[in-house]
Amino acid sequence: MSQIPKIRLYVKDPLSLAVQVSLDRKDSNYLLHVMRKGEGDEVSLFNGRDGEWAARISGGSKKSLALEVFEQLKPQTREPDLWLAFAPIKRARLDFIAQKATELGVSKLIPVRTERTVVTRVKVELLWANAKEAAEQCERLVVPEVGEMISLKNLLTAWPSGRKLLFCDEDKTGPLINEALVSVDGKPAKYPWGILVGPEGGFNQVERKMIRAHPECVPASLGPRLLRADTAILSALSLWQAALGDW
Amino acid sequence: MSQIPKIRLYVKDPLSLAVQVSLDRKDSNYLLHVMRKGEGDEVSLFNGRDGEWAARISGGSKKSLALEVFEQLKPQTREPDLWLAFAPIKRARLDFIAQKATELGVSKLIPVRTERTVVTRVKVELLWANAKEAAEQCERLVVPEVGEMISLKNLLTAWPSGRKLLFCDEDKTGPLINEALVSVDGKPAKYPWGILVGPEGGFNQVERKMIRAHPECVPASLGPRLLRADTAILSALSLWQAALGDW
Repeated sequence: MSQIPKIRLYVKDPLSLAVQVSLDRKDSNYLLHVMRKGEGDEVSLFNGRDGEWAARISGGSKKSLALEVFEQLKPQTREPDLWLAFAPIKRARLDFIAQKATELGVSKLIPVRTERTVVTRVKVELLWANAKEAAEQCERLVVPEVGEMISLKNLLTAWPSGRKLLFCDEDKTGPLINEALVSVDGKPAKYPWGILVGPEGGFNQVERKMIRAHPECVPASLGPRLLRADTAILSALSLWQAALGDW
Repeated sequence: MSQIPKIRLYVKDPLSLAVQVSLDRKDSNYLLHVMRKGEGDEVSLFNGRDGEWAARISGGSKKSLALEVFEQLKPQTREPDLWLAFAPIKRARLDFIAQKATELGVSKLIPVRTERTVVTRVKVELLWANAKEAAEQCERLVVPEVGEMISLKNLLTAWPSGRKLLFCDEDKTGPLINEALVSVDGKPAKYPWGILVGPEGGFNQVERKMIRAHPECVPASLGPRLLRADTAILSALSLWQAALGDW
């Protein structure tokens, strides 16, 4: 194949030479009616396990296109194990966080309920759909997992032993994030990590104490200006990737 | 004063003890009708030169409130000299870039016209209004300047000698951004810098060659995934601040 097809789709099926894959209704509609593709046209597929493959539309119905997989374009690569636990904010910026966190290589998104969290319910499927679309567009081979919304207390209780918890503390008393990261780990990261970012208005004092008391907690400051929650998330992820991840 | 007022406003007038400041129509309306403030209420003011001051609404008209400045809350601090030159994208994300770049400490925003730039005109006043609002909210003491839209060629021709030009090159051949930054400068930055980020779809080959040939150009890569233009801007600014800036 001389040219990598520009349309990338995440599928759940196994991918290997000469297998056939059926698309769901949404992706079939996208290929047929948004991208105006038809039989014989090529797209590329990934499933988070088998790398990226070129496939050709070979038939099926309008509701479920069939594709024939014919060439591997990229092998699956290992990605950093980096969770993002965050207090969800209003809809538009929530979509934005799912999209940006995917571009920045997060492996799992966990919405967290805190005292000052305004949003009380999060639709996991919507968050995941945003992450899927972002993964398709940013050439990632994996769509991040999305967890159900969980209280801060339960998050901390269930936090896996050995997984570092980078706490972006807006009170500015922690060490600067770059120093905090390299004092604990090196590149490529030895530990799995998670980043915890609070809601607009921050965590309350009881919450901050509880987080800081967690044995895996690594507190860090993001500089002298007050960052919005979504800015703090993007900054922390970028800095983590550059210091310990795959950048 | 026991408590710092939470409303912060940028003004153009000089600020010092016992001076009187007149607000413009927009800010007067905001204080009176959005925040429901009135005579005797306190706000805090900054002008980018004299630090932050507490002031009390002392009269004036509905169209132009008068405030009396009565106490300095913070001295003016020096901020890093960091420009952001970027290919503007559609409206919503342009507002977003102005807001986030302000939070991340940019000193000047310069919209740049490139071959693949979709937006052909940018309203400087709108960008600046977004930057002003972000500066008011993120506790910055400065509102970034906003330049008129300029062609890439003219930007490079007019680029000041001695100002480093961090080129976020999506072809991934440059060194990783953290390495690129520390190989050229240290913390706090010795040089003034500017960051150049291209449009969706990237710079074309002629443009890339022209940028790379610039004597101040420092090429850098932002990792293995394809970042959207707004994500690349936020990541590059965060990494610059952490490596060379005031974080």
